[in-house]
Amino acid sequence: MVNFCLKLRSTSTFAANPEFFDNNIRVKPDLDALGALGDLGWYSIGAILWAKRYELPSSLTALPDVVRNSAGVILSCSATLYWEKSQQEKPPPLMTIATFHCSFLAGVSMDLEIIGSNGSVRVKDLAIPMDEDAASIEFTPRAKFAELHIGWDTKPEKVTVTTELPQEALMIREFTDSVRRTEDTVESRWPEISRKTQLVLDSIKRSIENGCTLVYI
Amino acid sequence: MVNFCLKLRSTSTFAANPEFFDNNIRVKPDLDALGALGDLGWYSIGAILWAKRYELPSSLTALPDVVRNSAGVILSCSATLYWEKSQQEKPPPLMTIATFHCSFLAGVSMDLEIIGSNGSVRVKDLAIPMDEDAASIEFTPRAKFAELHIGWDTKPEKVTVTTELPQEALMIREFTDSVRRTEDTVESRWPEISRKTQLVLDSIKRSIENGCTLVYI
Repeated sequence: MVNFCLKLRSTSTFAANPEFFDNNIRVKPDLDALGALGDLGWYSIGAILWAKRYELPSSLTALPDVVRNSAGVILSCSATLYWEKSQQEKPPPLMTIATFHCSFLAGVSMDLEIIGSNGSVRVKDLAIPMDEDAASIEFTPRAKFAELHIGWDTKPEKVTVTTELPQEALMIREFTDSVRRTEDTVESRWPEISRKTQLVLDSIKRSIENGCTLVYI
Repeated sequence: MVNFCLKLRSTSTFAANPEFFDNNIRVKPDLDALGALGDLGWYSIGAILWAKRYELPSSLTALPDVVRNSAGVILSCSATLYWEKSQQEKPPPLMTIATFHCSFLAGVSMDLEIIGSNGSVRVKDLAIPMDEDAASIEFTPRAKFAELHIGWDTKPEKVTVTTELPQEALMIREFTDSVRRTEDTVESRWPEISRKTQLVLDSIKRSIENGCTLVYI
């Protein structure tokens, strides 16, 4: 499905408290100057790139709803990412668009939505799952309306993945495994993912700074 | 919550079959020339306006992912709607943005998502519910991450509304009641809703025809 993916969307928000706005490194221009974009945005951009198999968007534009603190650090922003139709693929896929929003100003949301030609996938709790021992996606195969349009012929199906270890422990295990592996050879997977995610983040910031103009990547 | 609403999103899609693309009035330039925008788009735009208490957006822009058939009728399109910060409200609300997508080219999706400062609401089966006798929304109050970020302190809550009559029957009842009521007085509610929905649809079409430029309403 990902090959013919049409629409992607991801949102990462949480409502920070007053102490956070005063003191957290994420809102300090001389510390994490990327603010909500560098913190929450990282997960959404990473998820969107994952859904596109780490193909970079051809261009993007920030939306004019950016909110900054008095020091100019981003507290909330949105963007639209475009993947131009490729001439090399047969049949040429439709243009992919991703919409993205991150914010320190709204209650927790951590969504990823993939709407493809042949089905859709929704995740509700992307980077921090609601539970430690399981996470789920909702998969809707190519649904149709039932006869007389009195319902749908297929309903979303919940697919749950359980884990014996919390994801943070799995992350550390992956990290140590990765360090061990690179004793022999430099692994390119994680550096590539990080570099591409950062590139998209920086491009969104550039679009914001240029008055929400289109930025080519 | 609606008063301080930050982000709205709605998607209406279904995958039409070959017969539909050949013969349906919705893809004929001399019949329903608005295509997917006039058909599926109507529900999403209506839902977005409902969430904004029928306040019209100040501007909007179509996105460049429009797909047309050989006769030029829209088969798929997207748009972003903006409500500028109002100077009259105290405290001034944050800018509201709605993203919108409609398409005859993907399996059924009929979503409405409202992300507000104090919680979020998600509907999966907007215009044609999955079942005839009940429909539900998912409400997430202002959730926070649990201590040590090992989960969320609040989970989405499913709110189900049951109905003895299918929604189509309720619509006809509302229509006949409305006709009866207008024997004495002209009712403004439905004409206003229809007019505003059409105005937004027409503005999206104008934006598409002008190369996805910003259109002021």
